[in-house]
Amino acid sequence: MKKINLRPMLKPASVAIIGASRDPEKVGHVILQNYLNAGYSGKLYAVNKNAGAEISGIKVFGSVLEIKQEIDLAVIAIPAQFVPEAMEECGKAGVKTAIVVSGGFAETGNKELQDRLVKVAEKYNMPTLGPNCLGVMDPRSRIDTLFLPTYKLSRPSVGGVSFVCQSGAVGSTVLDLISGEGFGLSKFISYGNAANVDEVDILNYLMDDEETKVIIMYVEGIKRGKEFIEIAKKITKVKPVVVLKAGRTPAGIAAAHSHTAALAGDYETHESIFRQFGFTVAEDINDLLNYAKIFSSESLPTGNKVAVITNGGGVGVLTADEISMSGCLEMSKFTKRSCDALRKIMPALVNIRNPLDLAGDADGERYSDALSVLSTDDNIDIFVIITLFQTPGADSRAAASLISFKEKTDKPMIDISIGAEYTRMHRIMMESSGLPVYDSPLAAISSLSALLKYSIYKNRK
Amino acid sequence: MKKINLRPMLKPASVAIIGASRDPEKVGHVILQNYLNAGYSGKLYAVNKNAGAEISGIKVFGSVLEIKQEIDLAVIAIPAQFVPEAMEECGKAGVKTAIVVSGGFAETGNKELQDRLVKVAEKYNMPTLGPNCLGVMDPRSRIDTLFLPTYKLSRPSVGGVSFVCQSGAVGSTVLDLISGEGFGLSKFISYGNAANVDEVDILNYLMDDEETKVIIMYVEGIKRGKEFIEIAKKITKVKPVVVLKAGRTPAGIAAAHSHTAALAGDYETHESIFRQFGFTVAEDINDLLNYAKIFSSESLPTGNKVAVITNGGGVGVLTADEISMSGCLEMSKFTKRSCDALRKIMPALVNIRNPLDLAGDADGERYSDALSVLSTDDNIDIFVIITLFQTPGADSRAAASLISFKEKTDKPMIDISIGAEYTRMHRIMMESSGLPVYDSPLAAISSLSALLKYSIYKNRK
Repeated sequence: MKKINLRPMLKPASVAIIGASRDPEKVGHVILQNYLNAGYSGKLYAVNKNAGAEISGIKVFGSVLEIKQEIDLAVIAIPAQFVPEAMEECGKAGVKTAIVVSGGFAETGNKELQDRLVKVAEKYNMPTLGPNCLGVMDPRSRIDTLFLPTYKLSRPSVGGVSFVCQSGAVGSTVLDLISGEGFGLSKFISYGNAANVDEVDILNYLMDDEETKVIIMYVEGIKRGKEFIEIAKKITKVKPVVVLKAGRTPAGIAAAHSHTAALAGDYETHESIFRQFGFTVAEDINDLLNYAKIFSSESLPTGNKVAVITNGGGVGVLTADEISMSGCLEMSKFTKRSCDALRKIMPALVNIRNPLDLAGDADGERYSDALSVLSTDDNIDIFVIITLFQTPGADSRAAASLISFKEKTDKPMIDISIGAEYTRMHRIMMESSGLPVYDSPLAAISSLSALLKYSIYKNRK
Repeated sequence: MKKINLRPMLKPASVAIIGASRDPEKVGHVILQNYLNAGYSGKLYAVNKNAGAEISGIKVFGSVLEIKQEIDLAVIAIPAQFVPEAMEECGKAGVKTAIVVSGGFAETGNKELQDRLVKVAEKYNMPTLGPNCLGVMDPRSRIDTLFLPTYKLSRPSVGGVSFVCQSGAVGSTVLDLISGEGFGLSKFISYGNAANVDEVDILNYLMDDEETKVIIMYVEGIKRGKEFIEIAKKITKVKPVVVLKAGRTPAGIAAAHSHTAALAGDYETHESIFRQFGFTVAEDINDLLNYAKIFSSESLPTGNKVAVITNGGGVGVLTADEISMSGCLEMSKFTKRSCDALRKIMPALVNIRNPLDLAGDADGERYSDALSVLSTDDNIDIFVIITLFQTPGADSRAAASLISFKEKTDKPMIDISIGAEYTRMHRIMMESSGLPVYDSPLAAISSLSALLKYSIYKNRK
């Protein structure tokens, strides 16, 4: 399979923004502004026939041909009918890669215009993303081609999760959500109509990208089935891939076609391919985030036995239910040695069993004591800690105890904390130290199941 | 069935706090403080043998017998072994109702102590909530017996949702979450071990409570099966009841027993009873909130045909998928009249179909125009609007357009908005005006399905 080098698109030393504008309502203005705001330190050129001599201190050229410098990436944000000609000029100017943000191609029936775009890309061997896309974001290289202002869409921090997204809308909402998560972003690649560069090319590139530890993707239609299977076979042996596939029903398939001109195809076929090759299948947007969180922070489990330690009995019961219903995880039976040791140090009110309910007055010390005993229990493969910060004993010291234990243990460990402001504060505290926090037993246990299933897939011969 | 009057417990003119304390670490201190903070305007008495003459300006009595005034409610927060005697004194003093916050009864094996408590409650005909519970909250009467400080657990505003909860931990976390929702609370009743007052008594009371429009409940075990069925038959004809039942698996059942001494029983039996009598079954904590939101703000739908109007194509596709997979909802086919009218006023980029993708630059006016045409479409029973506030056109004016339309239409209408701060601001804006907002297609459509199913149940003969 031919590998497309996306490096000049994601780590460009020089960028030309074609359609850069001084009108704050224009896409070409917001893109330029976001480059400046993100602190991009490469060379930046504005291209616009009618925009005067400079915009925000950046020199404006009438055509990309006038720049006469090496250009790694051209971001094209002009009306659809002018795009092929602008790309032709990019080709002539030796531009290495292009991103066509503009819509109005195959997704609105303008197949012919899109074919012209593809021809130019192929003629000049200029990998082109889009059209009808948001482009890319890479917080390490400070590339940000999004035309959405930062007050509307908070930008994620630097991390190991790459997000491949066919839809701009899903892309922008998920990015906005990632900005509030403890894990950060490696690359965001929104590829829209996939006219030239498609999901196969992108996965191929990200498979070897060392900055990418986990891939999450939203896809409407897969264009090249055979090549997709080829890359699918390889990529999940290297890193986990979570996929949300839209177009699962006839109504969804029809909607997808009018959205990105995608041929969504039969979902059962897609799903069975995903599962066969170890992809983690997401059912909803929130799954993308929940699964990214656990994959980016956890080592893989070596077994399926879970210890649940809680300061709230009811949430412990719900979590035990979810574990039992998961179909793969099991509640651990603590060793006699653990039970005897716990009985000695826990208050009389605490029933020594799994889930271990430390009671509503449990503080950081009680969590530490319990975890210290259970840390050497061979019947435990995974720790699920429930800390309800509404209770009298749970505070920042309790969160700190969990963070300390997390740093010491090799076993996967997650936390469940449910609530408003006081809880949110502690969630940030724990997640920024690498302890994933979930907001419901269902979200936590389905994520843990995904981690276990991937681990089983990966260890298969 | 004997009806227990819980009014003196929820709307007391006078409250005695037995175990009131000046030590800020003590439960009896936090409870007293919360009464004062909530602005309770009835008579408040502190009871404690060893607490001096007054606490926070409230006179302290050595025994409830010394008060010699009418007392509607005694809140008891003293070590378990002293509870029966304190209740005996309450009975002698003519106290009308009691809440035993203290734990250390049947849930820790102390069945005998709990039996003594029940005997006293019965002897004096003094309905008693608990033991091992958080008690009650009623933002109208400003009753708040919770021993959890407000900085940890934000208090909900006044509204129509009553929350019946066996577990204190689930109770406090869900209350904390409700505080961030647009709907408000009618009553919170945490009943712990259900030794005297149980879920049957509480449902019986709330059925006739005009302030309660919707009931959500978390239950571990149902004590009186026959009586529960009797009330279940009647209550869902009057108002919707959403139930989350813990103890769905052997591991969960065992955990529930050690938590509230509940006999969780066989889940399939419970679930089939719930469904037979029109309860809405929640699978997770978040469902309780999602369903409460739609039941508290929406009139019941008269049909199952949904129009989806979006400014983000991908989220529209996912929503169409969820509707098609719901098993009860259907995508509406817009009338020819609607399609012709939309074609005239929408930009050429907009495909006239359902989901109607208004495109990323849709502003409030475009939403208004589309909704105005579709408002008279007889093929539409329900509106699902998707507003992704990351997009260039979506702002407060777009939210205002939706609120205006919501005020005019009789049909159920919900919104899906997914994102961080800027989105959260608009979610609050819309929800405080009665437009429910969901954070994912799955959450939105499962809630809408619950609403439709309840409507079908209620309209059955």
